[in-house]
Amino acid sequence: MTREELLAGHIQELRRGTVALACLATLSEPRYGYALLETLRAAGLDVDGNTLYPLLRRLDKQGLLDSEWNTEEPRPRKFYRISELGTALLGELTEEWRTLNSSIEALAQGAIE
Amino acid sequence: MTREELLAGHIQELRRGTVALACLATLSEPRYGYALLETLRAAGLDVDGNTLYPLLRRLDKQGLLDSEWNTEEPRPRKFYRISELGTALLGELTEEWRTLNSSIEALAQGAIE
Repeated sequence: MTREELLAGHIQELRRGTVALACLATLSEPRYGYALLETLRAAGLDVDGNTLYPLLRRLDKQGLLDSEWNTEEPRPRKFYRISELGTALLGELTEEWRTLNSSIEALAQGAIE
Repeated sequence: MTREELLAGHIQELRRGTVALACLATLSEPRYGYALLETLRAAGLDVDGNTLYPLLRRLDKQGLLDSEWNTEEPRPRKFYRISELGTALLGELTEEWRTLNSSIEALAQGAIE
């Protein structure tokens, strides 16, 4: 494995777990998949459609999102929005994220021996 | 799936990717596995031995850690320390983490629409 592949693998592991949190945080406004992809990219999260679309279906199935087909346009599109349960979970996940960030920063700065 | 299981699953996904980064950040001082576990826990990262020990072997195999057996004690223990390659990668992973954190915070605060 080259150095670049090694780095890419570890970066991917780091990012993987954050996508669900990022989706929930973004879907207080209803969005269809592609628009969400664009919003995440604008925020610096370069997510692949092959990762995002199955994740949206999973979050929807878990009841964390509400979804609705918009059939008023020539090509029907599914809109997603965070559910009540999703909103509660988002609060707890955001808190967990901040705790994780404090831990990582403390370790990175050698504050904990 | 109960609400608690749902939350636990998403929290686990969030944490999983951070353990390698946390290990690298902590192993500028040589430590054996159990001491590392204690340090991570002191930093608020509640990692399981069944997760940590295989990860240490993987990071060692990838050349990101150097390891050495201490045979001076009655029970030989393996000490791990970050390697030169690991130190370079740690810098890049820490940078990636901070970028991720900025993205998540911007989305969480609704700064990006």
